[in-house]
Amino acid sequence: MPDEVPPFTPARARHAGIVDVARLAGVSPGTVSRSLRGHQNVSPITRQKVLDAARELSYRASPQASGLASGRTRTIGVVVPYVTRWFYANAVAGAYDVLSAAGYDVLLYHLGSAEARDRFFERMPLTRRVDAVLTLTLGLTEEHVRALRALDIPLVTIGRRLPGVACVRIDDAEAVRHAVYHLVHQGHREIAMISGEKDEDGFDFRTWHDRREGFVDALASAGIEAQPELMPSSRGGIEGGAQAMAQLLSGPRLPTAVLAEYDELAIGALRTLRRAGVAVPGRVSVVGIDDHEMAAVVDLTTVAQPVSDQGAAAGRMLLDILAGAAPDPVDVVVPTRLVIRGTTAAPRRG
Amino acid sequence: MPDEVPPFTPARARHAGIVDVARLAGVSPGTVSRSLRGHQNVSPITRQKVLDAARELSYRASPQASGLASGRTRTIGVVVPYVTRWFYANAVAGAYDVLSAAGYDVLLYHLGSAEARDRFFERMPLTRRVDAVLTLTLGLTEEHVRALRALDIPLVTIGRRLPGVACVRIDDAEAVRHAVYHLVHQGHREIAMISGEKDEDGFDFRTWHDRREGFVDALASAGIEAQPELMPSSRGGIEGGAQAMAQLLSGPRLPTAVLAEYDELAIGALRTLRRAGVAVPGRVSVVGIDDHEMAAVVDLTTVAQPVSDQGAAAGRMLLDILAGAAPDPVDVVVPTRLVIRGTTAAPRRG
Repeated sequence: MPDEVPPFTPARARHAGIVDVARLAGVSPGTVSRSLRGHQNVSPITRQKVLDAARELSYRASPQASGLASGRTRTIGVVVPYVTRWFYANAVAGAYDVLSAAGYDVLLYHLGSAEARDRFFERMPLTRRVDAVLTLTLGLTEEHVRALRALDIPLVTIGRRLPGVACVRIDDAEAVRHAVYHLVHQGHREIAMISGEKDEDGFDFRTWHDRREGFVDALASAGIEAQPELMPSSRGGIEGGAQAMAQLLSGPRLPTAVLAEYDELAIGALRTLRRAGVAVPGRVSVVGIDDHEMAAVVDLTTVAQPVSDQGAAAGRMLLDILAGAAPDPVDVVVPTRLVIRGTTAAPRRG
Repeated sequence: MPDEVPPFTPARARHAGIVDVARLAGVSPGTVSRSLRGHQNVSPITRQKVLDAARELSYRASPQASGLASGRTRTIGVVVPYVTRWFYANAVAGAYDVLSAAGYDVLLYHLGSAEARDRFFERMPLTRRVDAVLTLTLGLTEEHVRALRALDIPLVTIGRRLPGVACVRIDDAEAVRHAVYHLVHQGHREIAMISGEKDEDGFDFRTWHDRREGFVDALASAGIEAQPELMPSSRGGIEGGAQAMAQLLSGPRLPTAVLAEYDELAIGALRTLRRAGVAVPGRVSVVGIDDHEMAAVVDLTTVAQPVSDQGAAAGRMLLDILAGAAPDPVDVVVPTRLVIRGTTAAPRRG
């Protein structure tokens, strides 16, 4: 998977100085620095002038010079909703390895709830403590994004696009389509989707919305109309998946297949089905999204996303922005792929 | 579980000044500070004089004063072998919540291998960056411990005792005894133990040794002699457990019960047994140690350890040491308990 992520150009040796670029572009050296570090308080026209001048002079800011410009803490702030969950822990580790190899330390913020997130943004402990910030799917509002931008340091996010901010993510609609098309190709028409909590711990995770919308769209493109009673939403995690599956089992019509918003929900659903004596995949097929480390253990068909790779790509992107080698906010979409295991099969006839 | 952890005295309001304590003890204020922060470069006699004087004057250093003394970074260094694994992620989160509530930031070091650990100790990036350090089961040598002590700041460790360092941990031998006695009470005599890698990623984890020794001792106290061919060691994690179980299945005598060093190995063993068509617990009982979040999902009998609580207890201990309220290295052992689920039963007769 890593080689499907667009490569980032490493910072090259410095040939021309920042003063040369400033002179050619007709701006101040500070404006050159801000333009090359992708800051928002530079007009597009000015930025273009600087980029043209930098290109003409083959100018690349060195990481050291860039570090000096941004306060040289040699520290990156990494902000996550939960460090204990599989996705976040692996994304943080992927970014950590890249940043650490480049000599950066990581100041970790594990928020745990939207209230803690809001307190964090009020207190803003990152001020003057870090050279750049990596945030992971925090359900940020415009106000939060403004607070981050006010730090005037490079910013990369994983999992969700924020206007004007570099991002590494998967295409949630694509991930859902992989799962739905797999079920449709097997002959399923009665397909349910179980989701986690809409506002877990107060976070308004976009994934919840994007995957549900993707599900309705994918069904529609297969000529199937989504049925609201087959889209229960429960609390999150394994217990939530177990509950949502019980809700489907207590309804008037049992679907032949269930898509879970993410693997932990699917694992909970499998537990309920096993306890209820419902054959998987004989009576009900189950598919998840993630390829969680436990998916292989329970033989779960799922749509895999490369999590550690997303962290590593985000880490490289931050280093490139710090080095002045990636001036524009980039939106990197890493591919997802279907992993077929033992929980999906053609529906039983009759 | 948290109420079984010995309570820590919170720092109280400051009544007498550090100078008063120094005068009464006949030492310098710096020696008072070092004594109360539990540093090693204070003789036991001097330390006792300071403690007596502090007690007589009801003196407690304030966290702020202590922060000033130690450089006032308001940051704690947290050093873990792997941030992606269940145990470490949950212990870090438990400590994080306590430290963050007290206004401290966390500088995270995720080492990943013994080589990275050794480079870390050579480079020692904690110097002047943190007020205190929390380390988690890193397989540290005396040299590493000396390097940490040379920082001259408070130090707490989780999972393994280091001479003169405050520690929060479980009693590994006790955890193993809970599991072995449970199996013996059910009538098992042919009991195997599967372990992970002895030197995973070069870390010499004490747990590997302590749990194996505990197993031999627990069997002996039940009048059973451990058999080396029933104690295979594989690589770690789920795949390792699957391999170790396959090794037992390919031996001349299949035991009636298997203890896994930790739950992920047990989960791998269950997968192998299911694929091999061996009934659990009918033919083979399986018990793990941890109560990993997936243990309930696969209905695994296990010995639970309170992981987040160990992190929280270590966090409180660091705050108390920083506040001068916990001068002596404390060894806090949190209790473990057996959780009986569906993978253990009496052995089939005949």
